Amino acid sequence: MSRLAIIGGDAAGMSAASQALRRDPDLDVVAFERTPYTSYSACGIPYWIGKDLSHERGSAPLIVRSPEKHRERGIDVRTRTEVIGIDLDSRRLTVKDLETQTESEEGFDELVIATGAVAKAPPVPGADTVEPSRTVDAAERFHAALERGGDSAVVIGAGYIGLEMAEALVKRGLTVSMLDIADQVMNVALDKDMAEHVLRGARDEGIHVHLSTPLESIEPGVVHAGGRAFPADHVVVATGVRPAVAIAIDAGLEVGELGGLLVDDHQRCRGADGVYAAGDCVESWHRLLERPINVQLGTHANKQGRIAGVNATGGDASFPGVIGTAVSRICSVEIARTGLTEKEVAELTDFDVVAVTAQSTTRAGYFPGTGPIWVKLVAERGTGRLLGGQIVGVEGAAKRADVLAVAIWTGMTVHELEMMDLGYAPPVSPVYDPLLVAASAAVRALDS
Amino acid sequence: MSRLAIIGGDAAGMSAASQALRRDPDLDVVAFERTPYTSYSACGIPYWIGKDLSHERGSAPLIVRSPEKHRERGIDVRTRTEVIGIDLDSRRLTVKDLETQTESEEGFDELVIATGAVAKAPPVPGADTVEPSRTVDAAERFHAALERGGDSAVVIGAGYIGLEMAEALVKRGLTVSMLDIADQVMNVALDKDMAEHVLRGARDEGIHVHLSTPLESIEPGVVHAGGRAFPADHVVVATGVRPAVAIAIDAGLEVGELGGLLVDDHQRCRGADGVYAAGDCVESWHRLLERPINVQLGTHANKQGRIAGVNATGGDASFPGVIGTAVSRICSVEIARTGLTEKEVAELTDFDVVAVTAQSTTRAGYFPGTGPIWVKLVAERGTGRLLGGQIVGVEGAAKRADVLAVAIWTGMTVHELEMMDLGYAPPVSPVYDPLLVAASAAVRALDS
Repeated sequence: MSRLAIIGGDAAGMSAASQALRRDPDLDVVAFERTPYTSYSACGIPYWIGKDLSHERGSAPLIVRSPEKHRERGIDVRTRTEVIGIDLDSRRLTVKDLETQTESEEGFDELVIATGAVAKAPPVPGADTVEPSRTVDAAERFHAALERGGDSAVVIGAGYIGLEMAEALVKRGLTVSMLDIADQVMNVALDKDMAEHVLRGARDEGIHVHLSTPLESIEPGVVHAGGRAFPADHVVVATGVRPAVAIAIDAGLEVGELGGLLVDDHQRCRGADGVYAAGDCVESWHRLLERPINVQLGTHANKQGRIAGVNATGGDASFPGVIGTAVSRICSVEIARTGLTEKEVAELTDFDVVAVTAQSTTRAGYFPGTGPIWVKLVAERGTGRLLGGQIVGVEGAAKRADVLAVAIWTGMTVHELEMMDLGYAPPVSPVYDPLLVAASAAVRALDS
Repeated sequence: MSRLAIIGGDAAGMSAASQALRRDPDLDVVAFERTPYTSYSACGIPYWIGKDLSHERGSAPLIVRSPEKHRERGIDVRTRTEVIGIDLDSRRLTVKDLETQTESEEGFDELVIATGAVAKAPPVPGADTVEPSRTVDAAERFHAALERGGDSAVVIGAGYIGLEMAEALVKRGLTVSMLDIADQVMNVALDKDMAEHVLRGARDEGIHVHLSTPLESIEPGVVHAGGRAFPADHVVVATGVRPAVAIAIDAGLEVGELGGLLVDDHQRCRGADGVYAAGDCVESWHRLLERPINVQLGTHANKQGRIAGVNATGGDASFPGVIGTAVSRICSVEIARTGLTEKEVAELTDFDVVAVTAQSTTRAGYFPGTGPIWVKLVAERGTGRLLGGQIVGVEGAAKRADVLAVAIWTGMTVHELEMMDLGYAPPVSPVYDPLLVAASAAVRALDS
């Protein structure tokens, strides 16, 4: 009987495991996971910390499928077990039981590496004292620390996770300072003009946002940054992550410029037969940049894991790449982006573009619950091809980016988008949907 | 100075007028409108009747732009004025002042016909005694009648408008019976399996829905249907509309099989130089059926009116057609459709298709506010091309149809859709968006 080993029991790994077993019920599938949990929603952690999610059953809402459930389906899940070495020639893994600290060896025929990502600690004194809440057990420890008391928190990094965690801590009644070295929030995700709307929302919610404020040191009870001291009974570091690829590199697997494992469109690791990788630890093909990027999102991890599971069992599935779609909701502000921002176009491409922003409303102007929405579009001069979209607004704003995602994916022009047959009804849209309003503005800008 | 005359002062007509004047500020633009209002939201009427919209300033929330505002911008608006004749050879209109009942003549160089649609009265005794609430003044009269008293209402027709009006009347405290000859609600818009979810929502809201119940007669205080008598202090007839084209036909203009004015993609009436038509009174090109259909929606009226205004002033704009997108929210159920339903495919096309329905949730399963969403996809066998989508679900469901609309518009396959880079964040989506879940189901159905 053939044996498929999975390193990492979250979205990518367990998607691969499940898919493989579905296709080949006789397959021997073993999955190794460092934490006590499998298939958890890391994206849900800030909402659990903020108690949007009930704590009645502890961290249960974050667990999509427990190790027990996976075992019932026939997957041999080993939790609290870390893979510390991969030998591709002998097809063996060295694994360490984190409870007993004993090491042993496990064979495999096919391998899926789904080791995820680890937080990047900022290069300042004390940064290594802060545990990032990237896993459910880490989130449980942070929650326990919050329960023990403290009035103040400092969140370092004003990206998606930083903002989500800052909101969670405000909801728990803490005084929250948020620091970022950049002169805008969401420096990686959004153009500065669009980020202003998010900044306003964060400040309205009571987050004390300090931009252009470089971190200096983290000490017990205090964070020094930009020449000031910020009281910090609790500290959250959310300054990005990097692929967790140490054992893969040791095994001789190739990583790309951005530090992720290099895979082809079948999630096959370059130059290693029968070895697949998926999720946060890989680089994914960006269809507009036409090169691999490193992006950490559960949606890609799930899809790539599934594809690895298909191909590891003799199937033929491929991942068509990404276009940079991401959404979030922070402090009653919905945020979305897809394709390229104006900044990314300038820094990473030779595209000649126009960018326009149109303000509109999410519902008919007269309808209860209507509110502002800003849509920024980036379109190529000459062709009019849509290359990027950013959306900030009230409820109902963010998922409109999916419409732009399909338009970008298929190479639609803003001229075509302007006349698209989108749905209209007063409770869900103005007669000209905000996307059409923005497309019209882009057409005028291109034609002028 | 050239003169542009507009017949009809709602969405299509006033869009044409505004666009023309924007392009040519010296143009003499006159618009004739039967009612006292211009640029009103007929789509908003049910929500105004149901008091979702404030009545503090009367019907003001329904008026997007008043005659006075249009006049300030230089459009000569004549309200309570009906055009009763068009002479294309002498370029003259016969108009009637509805206040004084006097007739006069008005010349024009270019003409835009935007006469909208009129309700189809069912062919039963008494049907002509019910005034449809299609205009703001008619809605005001209906509201006044409701204010005068009455406990019961009968709504005839279980389409979008019938359901919206039934909900409005329930909200006003009336006992509402809804009758339809069909064996499902939304017989034209949705397949029966999807309509079941709407039916359940309507019944949950307290609407007494009677299907397969043919109307027999409407008498004062009572409606007879299906051999039963329904108490009816108020009656709403919502059994569809037909294009208002009597004067256009008298003038020799051509209508299509479905009764709407035939126009080309520049909104030019066939065979009549300098004469344009737009909105509910025309037939619009359906990109999948590849023939004209008659569809009444404010979004098309606005776009077509604008295009007529461009072309009437020497510009070159074209309307690319429709694909049957429509959305609504009824009784906390959001409803959407785009492309073709399974029924439409069977009745109107030769496409060989599979249809699948997938149930999912609007947000992450553990996130507050999440709820059920059903997505039905229709895809062509062999090619996998997406041909239609229907969505019913809680808040956040309907506008997802716009994503399908772009996919259908661009000829995307369900295989491609399954791997689309759509936005994921727990507050707005499960990790597999409902559209991806449905696309996966369609892929499996096509491959099996």
